[in-house]
Parts: sequence; structure tokens; C-alpha cells
Amino acid sequence: MPSNDIQTQTRLAPDALGPTITIGEILVEIMANSRGNGFLEPIELMGPYPSGAPAIFIDQCARIGGAAGIIASVGNDDFGRINVGRLRADGADVSAISESEDYPTGSAFVRYREDGSRDFVFNIAKSAAAQVSLTSEAKALIARSGHLHVMGTAFAIPGAWEIIDHAIGVIKERGGSISFDPNLRKELLGQPQTRERFARLVEIADLILPSGEELFVAAGVDGEAAAIQALFARNATEIALKRGERGSSFFAADGSRIDCPAFKVVEVDPTGAGDCFGGAYVACRRLGMPANLALDYGNAAGARNVTVMGPMEGAGSRAQLDTFIATTARAIP
Amino acid sequence: MPSNDIQTQTRLAPDALGPTITIGEILVEIMANSRGNGFLEPIELMGPYPSGAPAIFIDQCARIGGAAGIIASVGNDDFGRINVGRLRADGADVSAISESEDYPTGSAFVRYREDGSRDFVFNIAKSAAAQVSLTSEAKALIARSGHLHVMGTAFAIPGAWEIIDHAIGVIKERGGSISFDPNLRKELLGQPQTRERFARLVEIADLILPSGEELFVAAGVDGEAAAIQALFARNATEIALKRGERGSSFFAADGSRIDCPAFKVVEVDPTGAGDCFGGAYVACRRLGMPANLALDYGNAAGARNVTVMGPMEGAGSRAQLDTFIATTARAIP
Repeated sequence: MPSNDIQTQTRLAPDALGPTITIGEILVEIMANSRGNGFLEPIELMGPYPSGAPAIFIDQCARIGGAAGIIASVGNDDFGRINVGRLRADGADVSAISESEDYPTGSAFVRYREDGSRDFVFNIAKSAAAQVSLTSEAKALIARSGHLHVMGTAFAIPGAWEIIDHAIGVIKERGGSISFDPNLRKELLGQPQTRERFARLVEIADLILPSGEELFVAAGVDGEAAAIQALFARNATEIALKRGERGSSFFAADGSRIDCPAFKVVEVDPTGAGDCFGGAYVACRRLGMPANLALDYGNAAGARNVTVMGPMEGAGSRAQLDTFIATTARAIP
Repeated sequence: MPSNDIQTQTRLAPDALGPTITIGEILVEIMANSRGNGFLEPIELMGPYPSGAPAIFIDQCARIGGAAGIIASVGNDDFGRINVGRLRADGADVSAISESEDYPTGSAFVRYREDGSRDFVFNIAKSAAAQVSLTSEAKALIARSGHLHVMGTAFAIPGAWEIIDHAIGVIKERGGSISFDPNLRKELLGQPQTRERFARLVEIADLILPSGEELFVAAGVDGEAAAIQALFARNATEIALKRGERGSSFFAADGSRIDCPAFKVVEVDPTGAGDCFGGAYVACRRLGMPANLALDYGNAAGARNVTVMGPMEGAGSRAQLDTFIATTARAIP
């Protein structure tokens, strides 16, 4: 493949410049074994599973072989330890995960309803996850980073913006790059400050990774073609659109497009699919892979993850994803 | 039985004066199905179970037929709703349970180790449980109460003391009575303020319900006889000593004593046994039963509760406890 091919070219800083970092919530997830409504009687549960969108992203990023680190906060409890242990074991830099003495590790109880929707009992706002701050360890990690990945979920966490803002400046200054996954609850965009920060990320990101309607929210216009065009009018040179069971698509500023079909899998637990896609895609691009290959690894990472109970239990190493790709049928596009 | 018998006489205010109330933490408990150390990998769990020592106490008090109410705080989530629903269904006054909009309902993850000791992951200090305050509903409940039961666990909750202090004044003023279960972690007595409050409760309680060594901690002297004597030098007229699988004992200020053997049961989950004993004992005494009968119901309530998974799942109605007593063998004293 020629190196000047748009599929290979990317504005994302190479892995060698320093790790991909992200900022935000680390949680444990407790899953109900049975479908039904909420948690109004004692039921069988499984957990704690390491979780939190930024944690899932960075775990997959590290597992596939990308340099990766996370700025976050956990409690001084087993729920913090299971998360930090998992991330460390999978190769992520955990030096900037602080430990709160006062607050417990964040948690999310999840139960699927019969119709596939979910009931939650969250503890994030009053958990260690909300205590994240710009510590000296966070500054040190940012100072050696090559890429910042911002998850929309982090906008709900009070201290996260100060860190994101600092990281944007430092990482841009040293020639690093930025990606943005606009996965935040739409209600949050009702707040002027959040809307402004969201707009700033859309403005400066080199790569945007929306799912479904998030594309239109990010672009501020309806219709896929118009939305893509609107985003390329900003700083972005690359969009990776997550379509779930309909695969994914790559768009470049020069108008080129690649569609990558999904894998046919039996879905056990969809949580974390988009985060795994993102972790694999960003890592692959920063490792110099062409877009079609990055999409393929992204699709494989998301698909493999949904076959396993737990938000990041199915995150795959490169060898595991190679096996998965070789042995799994494609969905008809 | 003659009504001037010490077994019948009690200084506890009769049920007709108004409900027994308690103040403190409402929690959900999540239990590991397997024994082992902590929560460092995903394991099978059961929950949420209604829990919290004061909640277990008041639930058993209500189930056996005593007027009962609780001042507490839960979150606006299913974990709060399962607790309030249970207490209401079992006949407790839930009007003074406030709902925090910001904080989640408190929680405790519990796993038994192979040696029978337990690992916990708690969220109490930064949960709704710690947001309890002297609301107008709490004042109204206190104003119509006949008896205050103070759990030592409440000393760990910042806002609880103001409510306890207010309740002591109001309830004493209207001819009500006070009981004290000194079940607090000994480390807490290292704090001068806690030690002072603990001493005040020991000073003014009409009934003290210690377990094991708590008797000596409360009395400030070693040796059972000396401890009993020291406590009767204060205000107490009655001590109900919980001995677990060795039953329970009643002591009166006049020197009389009744020992009540335990029931022989297969222990499934010991959590809540002492709280169920207390709830049943206080209710029975306030309903006018002699001490030997109150001890018997207390032992039965504690024993029945440990045969069932969950902190208050085995709390029994009077009919259920009558059946339990009639059909369960006594342990040899």
C-alpha cells in the first residue's frame, strides 16, 4: 500500500511520540443475571467487572499494543484495586490514577429489561471517579503523551475539564494529536458550559469517532453527507463512524470513504463495544496502519467484546483479534 | 404471673405511648455467593438485600407487632426504594426517611472468607445514609414516640447525634424510655467526642443490650459481675446480654437474673442476628411481656434470621416466631 495513500496517512501522532491518554471515570459494573425491571428485590448478580467508558477505551488501546495511559481516580477499596490491576496487567500506564481516601470507587449496577433497554443504579457523582484532578502525576503523564482521546462521558465529571484543557495545550504544543468520542447524554448539551466545551472539542479534534446520531449532534446538521462536510470544515481530517451491527465507516477530508462490514456474533452484553472500537482504532492508526485495517480491528474489538459478559472482559490482544478476524463471518452489509 | 414480678416490670414505656424509634443507616447489602478474599475478580453475588443495623432492628420490632419507626436517609434509587418498601410492608413508620437527590443509597458488599471472617466494601460515609438530618418529619415522629433505641453504629454518622440528642430530650420529657445497643467499632471510642456520647448513652439508657465484650466496654470494667454492677450504678434498670450461640441473659437492678438458652440452627448468614434480637426484645418488653418471654422471642428472632441469606430476610412475625420456638430444639446451655 503506498504511503501517500489517504488510507495510510493520518494526522494522528505516531505511537513513538508517547502514549494515547484519556481522562475520566473508572467504575465497577455489577450485572444482573436475569432480565427484568430494576433492583427492587434480591436477585443473582455478577461482578465487580472493571468498567467506565474511558477505562474500557484505554484497556483495549493497550491490549492491542498501543502505548496507553489514563488519568482517573478510584477509592481505596477492592473496586479500585480490581480496575488498576486489570489496566496495569493489560499494559496501560496507571501512574496517574489517584486514590481517594474518602470516596469509594464509582459503581454502576446494570440490569437488562425484557425489551433490551437497561435499568441502572449509578454512583459516579459522589464517588472517587468525580474526584479526579490535575495532580503532579497527571501533569507528568500528559507531558510525555502523544495523543489525547476525549470521551464525552468525562463532561459529566467536574474536575475533568481542567485536566482536558491542560492536556490539549500541552499535547498540541508537542506535536501530538486529539480524538473525540462525543458519547455524552444529550441532556448535558442543554448546559451552556457543556455545549461550549463540546463545540471546542469538535473544533480541534483531528479524529472524531461518533456513533449513530452523535454524528449529527457533533456536526450540528442533519444528514450524513452534510454532517461529514460540516465536521471537515473544522480541524478534523478523519472521521470513524461507528454503526454497531452495521459495521463502521472511515471518512477523510479529501472525500474518500471506506465502509467496513461488521462481524456476525451472538451478542451477550453490548456494553463497551463502542469504547473497544475506539481503543483499537486509535491505537492502530497511531501504530501506522491504514484506515481499512484500523476499521477492521475496531470492528473486531467491538464485536469480540459483546460476546462476553462484562464491559471490558472481551477486549482483545492483537493476536486474539487476528484469530477473531480469521474465524468470524462478516455480516452482509 | 404476678404483675409485680421483676420479670414483668420494666421501666420501658408501654407500646401505647408511641412507637419505638431508631436513627441511623439504611443500606443495601450485596453478598458474595462464594467464600474467599475480597472482590478482586468478578464473582457471583446476590442482592440488593435491605440492610443497616438500625433498619434490621426496626424491621424486626415492627414484624413482631411493636409500634416502630426510623429516622434515616436513602437515595433516589432502587436501593432506597427496596428498603423503604420493605420497612413499610413490615409495618414500620417510614415517614421520617428522607430521600437525598445527590447521594446514592448506602451499600455494603460482603464476602465471607474461608475462616468465617468477612471482607467488606462499604459506601456509607459518602452515601445518603450520612445525609440524615433533623427534618420536620423527623421532629414529628420523635414528638409522638414512646421509646428511643440508639445503635452504636449511628455514632459513625455525622448528622445522627443532633437527632439523637433532640430525641432524648423530647422522649424523656414525655415519659418515654431509652435503650442502647453499644455495637460500635472500638476504634471510634478513640475519639473524645464519640467516647463522651457513648458514655452519655450508657448513663441515661433504661435498657442496655450489649454483645460479648461490649458489656465491658460499656461498663468500663472487666468481669461480667462487676460490669453489670457498674451499669446498674447508672440509670439502667435492665440489661439484655446477647451471647450468640450461647443464648442470652437478663439482669435486673435488684440482682435477679434469667438465662435463656439459644436455639440450635444451621447458620447460613449471621449478619443481623443481634439487631433482630434487639428489635424483638424491645418490642416484647414494651408490649408488656415478662423478661423470660422477651428473651425467648429475642433468641428466636436472632436464630431464625441466621438461617436465611440476607441481613433481615429472616426477621419473623410473632406467629412465625411462635412456630419457630415450637419446632426448634434448644442448644444445651
